[in-house]
Amino acid sequence: MPFDAPFGTDTDETRTAILRATYAALIEHGYEDLTVQRIGDEFPKSKSLIYQHYDGKDEVLVALLEYLLDHFESQIPEPATDDADDCLQTLLSFVLAPDPSEARASLTKVMAELRGQAPHNETFRSYFSANDRRFRRDLATLIERGVDEGVYRPVDAESVASFLLTVLAGETMRRATTDGTVDSEAVCAELNTYVETRLLDGTDD
Amino acid sequence: MPFDAPFGTDTDETRTAILRATYAALIEHGYEDLTVQRIGDEFPKSKSLIYQHYDGKDEVLVALLEYLLDHFESQIPEPATDDADDCLQTLLSFVLAPDPSEARASLTKVMAELRGQAPHNETFRSYFSANDRRFRRDLATLIERGVDEGVYRPVDAESVASFLLTVLAGETMRRATTDGTVDSEAVCAELNTYVETRLLDGTDD
Repeated sequence: MPFDAPFGTDTDETRTAILRATYAALIEHGYEDLTVQRIGDEFPKSKSLIYQHYDGKDEVLVALLEYLLDHFESQIPEPATDDADDCLQTLLSFVLAPDPSEARASLTKVMAELRGQAPHNETFRSYFSANDRRFRRDLATLIERGVDEGVYRPVDAESVASFLLTVLAGETMRRATTDGTVDSEAVCAELNTYVETRLLDGTDD
Repeated sequence: MPFDAPFGTDTDETRTAILRATYAALIEHGYEDLTVQRIGDEFPKSKSLIYQHYDGKDEVLVALLEYLLDHFESQIPEPATDDADDCLQTLLSFVLAPDPSEARASLTKVMAELRGQAPHNETFRSYFSANDRRFRRDLATLIERGVDEGVYRPVDAESVASFLLTVLAGETMRRATTDGTVDSEAVCAELNTYVETRLLDGTDD
């Protein structure tokens, strides 16, 4: 599955160029060693522009998180049909797919690293809380649609969505923080089994 | 469920006292602002002892991770019987239980924060990789035992163990990095449904 790097090469807009520089600095140095100086090193224009556009490092990073999430979502393939189950399966398979490309592996790592700051960083914690709620709501909406369409059993969509989100968050975090110990195919297969038995089985009755 | 704080108040042994000071500094300041000076502030003896016992911050932190994991494991309640399913259910319920006590919530946050360093910190990545493998093996062993006992269906124990570990990692990470958005009871209920249908159902046939 192709995965485009988050930033094209033709970025002229200053705010986007700052985010691209921040992302490059994060991939190179990691959050612990990220400084505005190092962002500036990746930024072709005057470093003072960074302060004109963003009120400090946390604000740049939250803007970057939003940008990366939009990019990630733009990479999800179109489902084959409008069917709720097709949409859900496409989404789950995409997130659980291993990271064969460097572009995607880097993005997974940067997101995991910033998420790891959240216990002590309230700005990040707010972002990840809102993101968690939004993603869970999107999953629940798909499940509710499947129930309405008669494709899924009449389950508690919020609970199933919480569980699916937990699997996606766990897999992404495990992949970013271990060296090749994660068997993504097995996790994907087990999640499919869960979806089949929990949501699909018996709906033909 | 009671959860003891990781360090008793009667620690005289120097290495343990250093770990306790490091843990207190991490809870107070977070990894980003952790310095040997701040560890020293929580340490009643001479700061130079830290360098005599540990070769730098990373070595202290990996020793702390090992200590915290041992402590966490020591808090798992005894299963009611020797039955593999009892052992597995006790373990899953314990890890998925929400963090009602401050002692446990702090431990979850410290572990999540250190895990978030792993993408750029090879020492931590090695630790979390080894830990991931070990925990998955423990889960697989329990599942294999359940299969041998005829309590579980003849599943691929490694795949099911990978999936369970992913749920546990996801839930722990979500809890540590969001503000009250995680519905632990729902996740626990869905995991029970998975275990029932995937492992238990039909074993009476």
